[in-house]
Amino acid sequence: CDGGQMQTVTLIPGDGIGPEISTAVMKIFEAAKAPIRWEERNVTAIKGPGGRWMIPPDAKESMDRSKIGLKGPLKTPIAAGHPSMNLLLRKTFDLYANVRPCVSIEGYKTPYTDVNLVTIRENTEGEYSGIEHVIVDGVVQSIKLITENASRRIAEYAFEYARNNQRSSVTAVHKANIMRMSDGLFLRKCREVAENYKDVKFTEMYLDTVCLNMVQDPTQFDVLVMPNLYGDILSDLCAGLIGGLGVTPSGNIGANGVAIFESVHGTAPDIAGLDLANPTALLLSAVMMLRHMGLHDYGNKIQTACFDTIRDKKVLTKDLGGNSKCSEFTADICRRVQDLD
Amino acid sequence: CDGGQMQTVTLIPGDGIGPEISTAVMKIFEAAKAPIRWEERNVTAIKGPGGRWMIPPDAKESMDRSKIGLKGPLKTPIAAGHPSMNLLLRKTFDLYANVRPCVSIEGYKTPYTDVNLVTIRENTEGEYSGIEHVIVDGVVQSIKLITENASRRIAEYAFEYARNNQRSSVTAVHKANIMRMSDGLFLRKCREVAENYKDVKFTEMYLDTVCLNMVQDPTQFDVLVMPNLYGDILSDLCAGLIGGLGVTPSGNIGANGVAIFESVHGTAPDIAGLDLANPTALLLSAVMMLRHMGLHDYGNKIQTACFDTIRDKKVLTKDLGGNSKCSEFTADICRRVQDLD
Ligand SMILES: CC(C)[C@H](C(=O)O)[C@@H](O)C(=O)O
Ligand SMILES: CC(C)[C@H](C(=O)O)[C@@H](O)C(=O)O
Repeated sequence: CDGGQMQTVTLIPGDGIGPEISTAVMKIFEAAKAPIRWEERNVTAIKGPGGRWMIPPDAKESMDRSKIGLKGPLKTPIAAGHPSMNLLLRKTFDLYANVRPCVSIEGYKTPYTDVNLVTIRENTEGEYSGIEHVIVDGVVQSIKLITENASRRIAEYAFEYARNNQRSSVTAVHKANIMRMSDGLFLRKCREVAENYKDVKFTEMYLDTVCLNMVQDPTQFDVLVMPNLYGDILSDLCAGLIGGLGVTPSGNIGANGVAIFESVHGTAPDIAGLDLANPTALLLSAVMMLRHMGLHDYGNKIQTACFDTIRDKKVLTKDLGGNSKCSEFTADICRRVQDLD
Repeated sequence: CDGGQMQTVTLIPGDGIGPEISTAVMKIFEAAKAPIRWEERNVTAIKGPGGRWMIPPDAKESMDRSKIGLKGPLKTPIAAGHPSMNLLLRKTFDLYANVRPCVSIEGYKTPYTDVNLVTIRENTEGEYSGIEHVIVDGVVQSIKLITENASRRIAEYAFEYARNNQRSSVTAVHKANIMRMSDGLFLRKCREVAENYKDVKFTEMYLDTVCLNMVQDPTQFDVLVMPNLYGDILSDLCAGLIGGLGVTPSGNIGANGVAIFESVHGTAPDIAGLDLANPTALLLSAVMMLRHMGLHDYGNKIQTACFDTIRDKKVLTKDLGGNSKCSEFTADICRRVQDLD
């Protein structure tokens, strides 16, 4: 395997089923001898000086040092006025790109078989600017903010991603026929950046057309890049195509290697603590993390073991169509990881 | 059949395959003895006094009189600065509700079988306000405008639609977790209106969650109501589930009975004039129109004949998987319509 020194990762187990699936991931990493040292932290927002919500200093400090986080589901808001933890984390660490590879999993039946695409969502602006006003009674406006810098940055990320992951095309998703100036700016930056990546095919498509084509034939798509809200929608739509949030990994990427990988499903309080949760989404997010850290061999080994367990169909959690416990599913993956050595 | 007097409908054949599929619809209406007199008009925008784009006066006058339009696909923009005809028509006649029933068609294979839902899209405001600014170089804002009146009006339309069409639930689709004020206002109006329709179940769901659930199991949805952009996206997504724009009808509804029904596919210039086009979307839009006019028996008869032809699989246009011409497909439907008498 890749060998080398131990690297530290900030582990945010999260709420509900978070701790169980985090334990599952740690066990599988141990079986794979992945050179990761976990530093566990709680990120639930606290009120800082001046009444602003912030993540606790020791969690911030750990992330600043390790640069890499792995995060389970968080129950938010926990109180009125409490911010969305997802948004707060993206903001605190300027995680400007949300990346979601959606790949059909052999043996897990869905209406689609050959999905193999990646959505890349601008994670910092657009409709998520949070600027809204009441103009007069009964008339409200929300502002969608698009900047040249954020658009160029996400476009560059998408093309770099395509090039580094042997993907052949990038599609910019937009509604520049309606939002001519804002989506127009986003699109213009994508076109400009495309000029520097002649090895990657560039296409543009309206969001509505993408949605229609996506459910008719997802195999036509490869890497898709888009503003914030469109990414929110498309990334969930695409997760649905391959079996839902329980099997879809996600990564939030910032500058200088900073990144948080996370399962985007909920905390599932109804089954928390019952050893029934499915750790696949968090595990595959951890695999993305390993690749991001350059630890490809460990990532590939763990992914292969996970997919083998699912394809084999003998030891599956309930949501995957089986009767096994989380710990049994985990043990089966561990065994396979060890056999791959 | 419903009997009664002839009613006038403004027919906008449109461009490309528009005239062929309009002829097909007229033939089928004739075979069904539907009491409709067609008044053909061209709506392609012209420059009016003051340089504003407008639809030609004789088309406007016809619509003002008939109140009902049936429209094929339009090729737009036809010149730089030429407006989207769709947007211009919606604006000219204040067609505030876009209604798209998406129902699986027996015999036409798609990944889904039991889709039976209706998307109801607010058609006049939201992200389509057209208000955009450059704040400083490289920073653009687009304004999403949500008003109490338009939100209440579309919510009322959705609940009335549900009640009058034996549908049991209405789901409001929103992102009020992000756009708290604008989507918040929309959602509040939906909740208020729901109070007056205790016979219809009301639920609310985030747009991303709807997209995810939609591709996993569309049968859970019934009537969906939402702001403009979300409707643009979801209506196309849902059309994809049942086979695409070639088989999906659409209606744009205004106040006082004014409405334009239309096929939302393109003009297909590559096959225009070759007798190869599929008239299904326009025909099913015309069926919606008949129901809107209270001519349910004629509508049902034509719809049955159309679905029988498709289920039978013997006479299908190419896009439906067959080898027949548009005129042959049309003749088969005409024969069945007559047999139903
Ligand atoms: C929880 C919510 C704020 C968030 C979003 O809308 O971005 C979620 O849907 C996501 O995709 O991470
Ligand atoms: C053509 C375009 C302006 C339009 C829209 O975005 O509304 C289209 O997509 C539609 O759904 O009618």
